[in-house]
Amino acid sequence: MHRNEHVEKHFEAPEIIRDIVIGMADGLTVPFALAAGLSGTVSNTHLVVVAGLAEIAAGSIAMGLGGYLAARTDREHYLAELERERREIIELPECEREEVAEVLRSWSIPEEAVSSAVDAISRDHERWVDFMMKHELGLEEPNPKRARNSSLTIGLSYIFGGAIPLSPYLIFAHSLDALLISVVITLISLFVFGWVKGKFTGSRPVKSAWQTALIGGAAAGAAYLLARWIS
Amino acid sequence: MHRNEHVEKHFEAPEIIRDIVIGMADGLTVPFALAAGLSGTVSNTHLVVVAGLAEIAAGSIAMGLGGYLAARTDREHYLAELERERREIIELPECEREEVAEVLRSWSIPEEAVSSAVDAISRDHERWVDFMMKHELGLEEPNPKRARNSSLTIGLSYIFGGAIPLSPYLIFAHSLDALLISVVITLISLFVFGWVKGKFTGSRPVKSAWQTALIGGAAAGAAYLLARWIS
Repeated sequence: MHRNEHVEKHFEAPEIIRDIVIGMADGLTVPFALAAGLSGTVSNTHLVVVAGLAEIAAGSIAMGLGGYLAARTDREHYLAELERERREIIELPECEREEVAEVLRSWSIPEEAVSSAVDAISRDHERWVDFMMKHELGLEEPNPKRARNSSLTIGLSYIFGGAIPLSPYLIFAHSLDALLISVVITLISLFVFGWVKGKFTGSRPVKSAWQTALIGGAAAGAAYLLARWIS
Repeated sequence: MHRNEHVEKHFEAPEIIRDIVIGMADGLTVPFALAAGLSGTVSNTHLVVVAGLAEIAAGSIAMGLGGYLAARTDREHYLAELERERREIIELPECEREEVAEVLRSWSIPEEAVSSAVDAISRDHERWVDFMMKHELGLEEPNPKRARNSSLTIGLSYIFGGAIPLSPYLIFAHSLDALLISVVITLISLFVFGWVKGKFTGSRPVKSAWQTALIGGAAAGAAYLLARWIS
């Protein structure tokens, strides 16, 4: 528990806010860049809107569904390893005791303390398996509900994030007018989200704000130049 | 070291192959879906190519540059925490000794072994700081070179991955012809990459292949239906 307290110092935000920021920051970047790229070649904003919405649909599904399935796979992997460890402490208790001892030695526990610690740990089977999972395999039990909610939040936030750079193309008829407004509101949004992200992940907010805006700006600039060059 | 050996069981591939698979699987999905979406509304493949290339540029920069900057931030965070721990074991040695003891107790080390273990750990300052970083804060030293190479590999693989679904649009003049070929070659590629990914991440390859193809198919289907619906 002690360890968690410390980790919490670095992720002070409720996890849902972190997921919203992750999804929105990504949703702001790629649809923004795509719309900017297309603005250089098509003057009609309708097509930019169609392409932008198609991208948002694709990106949010890839991010949301992809994250959900990856989390499910992680969980199955964890349960399979758990099963294996449970079997091994019954079938190969001496090997597993030696593995506990090796982990303890790798932590610089003095040799005279190792065997009594191994005894204490291996007395209780649940505790023993728990020890092997965490410290030998480095696996923590994934929370299935949290994974699902997190993927959903990230996917939805991608949609909301993508709506910001795309909205000017819904209002203006000419794409270069829309592009100008889109650049301004998206860079401001990227700054804000980068700042919030930095605040919640323990890095300096101002630096995170600049970096997030830089990534979005670079992506949009590259897309714009490439699209102009090939058409 | 022991722990790493075990982890390697689950990531047997050279890291570069894993990065290639990650980048390509993502690069296959979103540009594929975007091109499919646009095929439902524009008959001319030229515009699909422009939009697809703009997306690939944006996506690869967001993924590559984003990953690189995130890795740099992780490293700075690690170094800042390292500095703090080094200061604390000198300024507050009793507190830090107690923190070591708490970590050991949380591992079910019997009380009589705790104080001799704490003595052994805190005798060597480097080892002590190392112990606090790993087990109190749960931080491993990030490798800066690896992070840069990994981001570059993922970004480039995104470009190569995106080239697969987009290539039929370069060959065919009518977008629905191109779409058909694109769907076939991309689904095959997603299966292959999902299979390879599963092989290298410890999950069942066949299942991973189906999941990867499902994500791509769902994203493309949603983008196509949405684009048709709004135009």
